Formats: sequence, C-alpha cells, structure tokens
Amino acid sequence: MSENININNNDIILTSRVRLARNLSDYPFVTKLNNEQSKEILDIFRNLTGDIKTSDNSKMSFIDLSSMKQYEKAALIEQHILSPEMMNENISRGLILSQDQKTSILINEEDHLRIQHMENGLNLYKCFEIANEADDSIESKVKYAFDETLGYLTCCPTNVGTGMRASVMLHLPALSQTNQIENLIHSLSTLGIVFRGIYGEGSDFKGHIFQISNQITLGVEEKATIELINTIALDIAKREKECRNKLYKANKFEFEDRIMRSLGIFKNAVKMTSAEALKLISDIRLGASMGIIKDIEISKLNKLMQDIMPASITKNYNITDSLERDIKRCEIIKNII
Amino acid sequence: MSENININNNDIILTSRVRLARNLSDYPFVTKLNNEQSKEILDIFRNLTGDIKTSDNSKMSFIDLSSMKQYEKAALIEQHILSPEMMNENISRGLILSQDQKTSILINEEDHLRIQHMENGLNLYKCFEIANEADDSIESKVKYAFDETLGYLTCCPTNVGTGMRASVMLHLPALSQTNQIENLIHSLSTLGIVFRGIYGEGSDFKGHIFQISNQITLGVEEKATIELINTIALDIAKREKECRNKLYKANKFEFEDRIMRSLGIFKNAVKMTSAEALKLISDIRLGASMGIIKDIEISKLNKLMQDIMPASITKNYNITDSLERDIKRCEIIKNII
Repeated sequence: MSENININNNDIILTSRVRLARNLSDYPFVTKLNNEQSKEILDIFRNLTGDIKTSDNSKMSFIDLSSMKQYEKAALIEQHILSPEMMNENISRGLILSQDQKTSILINEEDHLRIQHMENGLNLYKCFEIANEADDSIESKVKYAFDETLGYLTCCPTNVGTGMRASVMLHLPALSQTNQIENLIHSLSTLGIVFRGIYGEGSDFKGHIFQISNQITLGVEEKATIELINTIALDIAKREKECRNKLYKANKFEFEDRIMRSLGIFKNAVKMTSAEALKLISDIRLGASMGIIKDIEISKLNKLMQDIMPASITKNYNITDSLERDIKRCEIIKNII
Repeated sequence: MSENININNNDIILTSRVRLARNLSDYPFVTKLNNEQSKEILDIFRNLTGDIKTSDNSKMSFIDLSSMKQYEKAALIEQHILSPEMMNENISRGLILSQDQKTSILINEEDHLRIQHMENGLNLYKCFEIANEADDSIESKVKYAFDETLGYLTCCPTNVGTGMRASVMLHLPALSQTNQIENLIHSLSTLGIVFRGIYGEGSDFKGHIFQISNQITLGVEEKATIELINTIALDIAKREKECRNKLYKANKFEFEDRIMRSLGIFKNAVKMTSAEALKLISDIRLGASMGIIKDIEISKLNKLMQDIMPASITKNYNITDSLERDIKRCEIIKNII
C-alpha cells in the first residue's frame, strides 16, 4: 500500500438528498386532518402519479401504505425512503416511488407532501434539480399553501420558507473514534447546520455514519442552502481524510490489524447482530477506502448496509426469529462479499 | 456437517513421550558436580554419540550447549526438546538429538542423562521401546548408578526406581471451558497421575493444552506405568469428545460462530501475540477436529503451534523486537494456512 493515501470524497460521502415539504392550500395540516380528508389527499396524488415528471424519466408508482405490512414499511425506513412517522396508521398515508427508488414522494407524512430525491456521493445540485422538477409538475396540477412573504407554509414552523432540507450522509470513522464529533456538532450548529449520527446517539455512533443538513428554511435561497451544505460536506470529508492519514501514520500496523480482523470476522462469522455488522462494515469501508483492503468494492458495502438490516431481512427472506435473522445475515454477507 | 461427530483420538492426543533418568555411578549427582566433572561427563557422551542406537535408525548429533545462543535454546524449549533447566550455564551441558528430533538425550540436566523419545498421537509403547533401546546401547558402554532393591538412582528421590516419566499431551478445550480440569487434576492425583496445563496455570490454560504423566517411579514396572497412562489418556480423550458433542448439540450456532470467528481473525490479523495465537489455534483445532473447518489439516496446526512461539521466530527470522515478531507471526500463519 502507498504511504500517500488518496481517499476519494465518494468513499466518505455516501449519499446526498434534497427534500421539499409542501402542503395543499385547501386542506388543514396533517396534524389536524381527519381520516376522510387524508383519504381525499391520497386520492388526489394517486390520480396525479402519472403526471409527475422527473428529469431521469423513471416511472413512478403509487403505493397506499395501508396495503403494506409493517415490516415492509420498516424495510423502507431502513432504506431511508420512509420515515418512522409513516408507520403510524391513524390516517391514510401513501408513497410515490420511482423505479430506481431515488425519487420518493411521501403523502401525509408531517406535511401533505414530502418530495425527496437521493443520489450517491456528493450530488446535491442534481438532487435539487430532480426534486424541483417533480415539485413543478405537481404544482401545475394542485394549489400549494404558499405565502408571498414567508414562502411555502408547512405543518412545523421550522420548515416554513423553502420547505427544503438538503442533507449529506458521511462515513466518519476517524473523526468519530478520535472524539471530534461533539465539537463538530456544536460548531456546525452555530452555522445553522444540524449534524447527527444516523444509527445511535451520544458516544455510540454505530457504523460511524453521520448526516449534515440545513436547519434554516426561512429567508434563504434554495441554491445558497445547497451551496452551504455542499461546502460543509467537503470540509468535513477533508478533515476526515486528514484524520485517517494521521491515525494511519501514527500506528500503521495497529490500524491495519484492526481493519483486517474486522474483515476476518465479517467474512467468517456464523451469526451476527445488525449493530455488529454496521460496526464491521464501517471498518471494512475504511480499509477499502484506504487501499488496505483491495478486493472489496465500496458499492458492495453500500448494498450490504441496507441488506443486513433487520426489517430488510424479514421482508426479503420472511424471517422473523432473531437468531435465524442473525444467521441469515452472515449468509447474505458471504454471498455479497 | 454431520450431527454425529466422529472425533479421532489423535485430534485430542497431540503427542506421547517417554523419558528415562539415568546417572553415572562414578560421578556425584548434577547438583554436586563441579565444572570439571560436568565437562568430563559431557565428553563421555560426546564420544559415545555414534554408538547410541535407536530403533528408527536415525542419525544422532551431539551439541555442546555452550555453543548455542540463549534464544536457540529457548526455541528448543518451546519444542519441548530442552527443559528450562538447560538455559542455566553454571556447568557444562549437552544434547544428543536424532535427525527427526524425536529422540533427545539431555546431558547434565537434573540427572546426568535424560533419554527421551516423542511420537505424535497416542504411542507410548513405541516411545518406551525406542528410549529403552537407546538406554541399552548407552548402558553397554557406561556404568549406571543402580541399586538392586531401589532400581535406578536419581538426583531427585521422586525419580528413583524406573527413572521413567511417561507423558501424553492432550488438547482439551471442551473440558477446560466447562471448568472440569480442576476436578480431573484432583481425582487423577489420587491415582498417582500428574495432570497440568502446558501453557499457563490456574484458570488461564492458554491453548487448552494439558499433560498427564506418572508421579510414581518406585516399586512399579515400566510397562504397568505405560499401560496406566495409556488408559487414562484414552479415558480423558473420551470425556473430552463427549463434552464437545454435548456443547455442540446444546448450541450449534454459538459453537460454530466462535470457531469461525477465531479462524477469521487468525487468517486476517496483521499482528498477534503468541498467547492469542495459542488461543485461536485451540479454537481452530477444535473446529477442524469436529469437521466445522474442513480445509485445514491438524498437522499444519501442530506445526504452527511450534512456529509461532517467540523464541522460534527469533531463531528462524533473526527478529528480537516484540512488534516485529507479532507481525512476522501473522505472516507465518498466512504462509502455512
């Protein structure tokens, strides 16, 4: 392995995502919807599905969430398509999903509409462009709750204005293991940036996966917000790279040993919890990113990060027993790696 | 894997060994030898080397231990050829060694002569036969200290009589992990059998390798002693087998998981202490013996158990730094496995 490690940004930045919160002007916000109204809203968008255009021309499908089993919804939550809110069956909720699952529109989540688009790596501009096109095609058919001064009106005041949340998911094992996350959380909050762990909180950041997103939606331009998150993401990725190189140079063999042991366990274990799998994937991703592990593609690890999650296993293999799932998880790993 | 596990005795019984303690009648015991006398004894056996016959007809070589470096002696201790006593340079000491290293004669250890022969698996009768032939060929040339009533006279009274120690080395991970060793030590001691861990004492039996040997040498026949140790070894091996099967049936996946994780770490680690290597070899040997691991021969593990020891690495690769040795240990493992 070269002593000069060249880590690609895309090894650190997993995904980019833009979400737009929108509401219909003729209905109360979701918290005040009765069941009848929630059904009407669902029907409006069911009928509109064919008209929603996305710039990648993928076909959109409408799903009434009442037709889905809870573990199927849980699997979509693990894939970051649904939010936990959507498990609640008190009103009618729906999902419009593109074939590649990159564009998803949540109906009657916290707002009547949550239009979101996800891309791999750092690609917020494309995410915004596609979400925006979907938004325009819907807006041409319905009347949004919009105020000339404030902008888009949303159920929660923190989304009023652009209604936009731009977020980037990052893999930060070096910053996390050297306890630099709490400081980053604090300093980014002063810039109106939310920085948080995806799995677990506090000192137990499982898998060392983090998300940054904008806090502010009022009185700002979408493009400026995206520019800000983009810049911050690149800055954090740079810090992570520097930290990795520093750790590696400080103790090369210690560093390689930990990664290779994780790989050994990952490939050989007979049963494994999802928490352990996330931890090991984090080490292996770090090793693959730094060239310590040469024969495992990062894309396979991205796939595994979804496939090893509990609800995904339940959905894909019809397994509900916890031990059986821990065993199946190891089979899935062996098949992909 | 079959549910009916057929574990070979030789997977459990690593080696058999017979050692005969002998002294020359014309010299005081080793503890009272002056340096001059120790040199004379060394010369007697140096000159005798060519006459020592072993039934496997292997060529014997004489080594004056003062010509060996301390780490070379340490490596022979790790191979169970020398005893730690032989590191002491206060008097002249020597070693006569067969080409296959199975027959070794220690000169001026605790007694003037310690004639020993080692075989793989359970093979005490052959060990005795070969040690006995070597003994006879020496006895035809020198006068042993022998008493018609007591038998062979030895430096330590516990060896007087036959001067023979018959021992068997066993791998007992299941009995060890289920805390049955202490009870066995106690009950075997009442039969005049010494049962002890080879690496480490108390509850920390590294590698789960144990040795049984006879305590009694006075007023017994050699063949009866060998018969006794043979019977006890088979009995302990049977208990170990039953215990393995019971553990495996009680929790198949837990059992396999632990073994496969150990294999994963063993094959992938970048640095490893000898204590950890012994622990992992124990798990892998157990797995190979039970058919859980199919592609690793027990003979390779036997070789590794010697090759990964610190002094052996120092001797074979001229490495004295502890970290370098821990790294080389992993290379050795990867080369053999």
